[in-house]
Amino acid sequence: MNEYQLLVEAFNRTTYPLSGHGRRSIQVLKEAFQDVDENLDSDIYGSGQLIEDFQAEMAEFLGKESAVFFPSGTMAQQIALRIWCDRKGFKKVAYHPLCHLEIHEQDGLKELHHLEPVLLADKNRLIHLEDVLNMDKEVACLLLELPQREIGGQLPDYTELEAISAYCREQGILLHLDGARLFEVLPYYEKTAAEICALFDSVYVSFYKGIGGIAGAILAGSEDFTQESKIWKRRHGGDLISLYPYITAADYYFKQRVHKMGQYYEEAKELASFFNQSEAVSTLPVEPVSNMFHVHFELPKEKLMPILIAIYESTGIGFTQVLREIEGTTSCYYEASIGDRYAGVPKEKLREAFKQLDEKIREAQKVDKR
Amino acid sequence: MNEYQLLVEAFNRTTYPLSGHGRRSIQVLKEAFQDVDENLDSDIYGSGQLIEDFQAEMAEFLGKESAVFFPSGTMAQQIALRIWCDRKGFKKVAYHPLCHLEIHEQDGLKELHHLEPVLLADKNRLIHLEDVLNMDKEVACLLLELPQREIGGQLPDYTELEAISAYCREQGILLHLDGARLFEVLPYYEKTAAEICALFDSVYVSFYKGIGGIAGAILAGSEDFTQESKIWKRRHGGDLISLYPYITAADYYFKQRVHKMGQYYEEAKELASFFNQSEAVSTLPVEPVSNMFHVHFELPKEKLMPILIAIYESTGIGFTQVLREIEGTTSCYYEASIGDRYAGVPKEKLREAFKQLDEKIREAQKVDKR
Repeated sequence: MNEYQLLVEAFNRTTYPLSGHGRRSIQVLKEAFQDVDENLDSDIYGSGQLIEDFQAEMAEFLGKESAVFFPSGTMAQQIALRIWCDRKGFKKVAYHPLCHLEIHEQDGLKELHHLEPVLLADKNRLIHLEDVLNMDKEVACLLLELPQREIGGQLPDYTELEAISAYCREQGILLHLDGARLFEVLPYYEKTAAEICALFDSVYVSFYKGIGGIAGAILAGSEDFTQESKIWKRRHGGDLISLYPYITAADYYFKQRVHKMGQYYEEAKELASFFNQSEAVSTLPVEPVSNMFHVHFELPKEKLMPILIAIYESTGIGFTQVLREIEGTTSCYYEASIGDRYAGVPKEKLREAFKQLDEKIREAQKVDKR
Repeated sequence: MNEYQLLVEAFNRTTYPLSGHGRRSIQVLKEAFQDVDENLDSDIYGSGQLIEDFQAEMAEFLGKESAVFFPSGTMAQQIALRIWCDRKGFKKVAYHPLCHLEIHEQDGLKELHHLEPVLLADKNRLIHLEDVLNMDKEVACLLLELPQREIGGQLPDYTELEAISAYCREQGILLHLDGARLFEVLPYYEKTAAEICALFDSVYVSFYKGIGGIAGAILAGSEDFTQESKIWKRRHGGDLISLYPYITAADYYFKQRVHKMGQYYEEAKELASFFNQSEAVSTLPVEPVSNMFHVHFELPKEKLMPILIAIYESTGIGFTQVLREIEGTTSCYYEASIGDRYAGVPKEKLREAFKQLDEKIREAQKVDKR
């Protein structure tokens, strides 16, 4: 067994993992369906009360005319960008260099839709108004991800967001929201989802991040936009005869958790402050603006792993099961994301874990300097 | 309420619908998960024991090196044809004019993959060896659907299938099997799935037709083929974080029903013979070769509907909830597909329903001739 597997194993044995809602097990489905009437009819190829009711509910929550349930955000977002490009007659879309479409989708946007991404901003910072003002004039659509996951879940100021939206409207550039974690930023912005979505022409939200469902996404916008998206959904092979396993779970966990985002946000700030007390550890952002943030350690991955394993074993606290290197440095990081679990973690265990973390990292750094 | 809705309503009130396994309700999911350990981990983006075990099981059943679970056949088949075209460096694929890709997928193959279908044979008959021999020489891949659903589920003779396969191998034309209903034809061919699949380079099978699962498909072939298909699955937005709701149900119902295909086949022949006893009714094929067939009525749809409704109400037997016109005629038809329900239908009720059907159609035809 290598070091990496040892970390996963040690994490899986902890009593108090700090991230998420719980294990992704069959129980997630069983709980969601427990009280659902077994005689309820399946949705059939996008029709039927079960899917139509949920779509209407989400359209209302997001303040859009219409909404369509998709098996994945990958499918929903490629389709949104394709529709906007077709309407504008341009092939270019603009987004952040660490956009999901650029780094996690095997170039589906290019390979299937033949669209050309224009990468805005340096990958280590947010897209700003100035980047948009200086953008290629043949961009049909700008995608903004709120929060920008790959840089710790950072957010632009709301006034900057409004200015970007106003500029795009003025210039006829379509604005699409990658809202994979939209629900999670509502407490920081102190806005409703509908208020934020009003700045965008189309919106995608996910149901298995902060909401903790099984899978699935909603794409929302005007009626003509969502109608067109259903044709592309069929073309992509996403218009399944039955999507209810995902829809029913999305609906169940949405109702259970959408009002808990404020709690997760406060807990994220608390947890980040624990990390930031240690000299060789810092969080990005320093003060989280949602339930997520990145934790940076000034120590190489292979030095940190045995430290984490020792802490997991002596305290039962689990920070993470995976560490990633930070390019061009000897540091490493992981993504923390607060869910239901954090509230159940005893504070004295947590303090003990952070005490050990601080001591062990200092010790390791001393050894390094000898 | 229009006539069409009346037929649906009347059908939904029948005690003995003749087609299928049962209603597509939440119960289908609940039953499949009832005895599954709630602590079992979800598959994660195509990895994990749950998905890997099922893929291995299906690869073995189909006699292929490797298999990949897809959310839909639409996605799986477009991807199969794309891979074969990329390998051959041609853009053309050949299939039947009533192929699923041609009539049910909003032209995804053309719009997303820019492939050009070559339609073989007249739409009312099967593809024969001669059609293949005379095919455009730039066809990368030939798709055969067994059974050919849109013409009543007809099948070529096995020797002809072997000859087509041999010719394709000789010419370097890749052969893909649309096996949406492959399990259903094994009793007629008296072959194993692996024996039939050995004639093809790639194979798709479905889990919500004869198997009666929730949704989902398997694409099988050589290891390098399925590895490439996973990249395209990600591009299409089909590489979901969790596919287990479909996989677990597919596995459950596969084990429950794959050995019942012989029974469904015998029952289909029996039911077809009942229809064929009526002069103005005939089935296509006359003797079914699987669990499915088409029922043709020499009466316009609007004349047949009230007759069917009256029979449903007086006998509790439900033939169909939908009737389709036959282009260029005054006849209409529906697709019958035998599943678990048929075995529970009392024979005397069935005979009474057919007696009434015969009488009422004769009566209607007499009125017509006056």
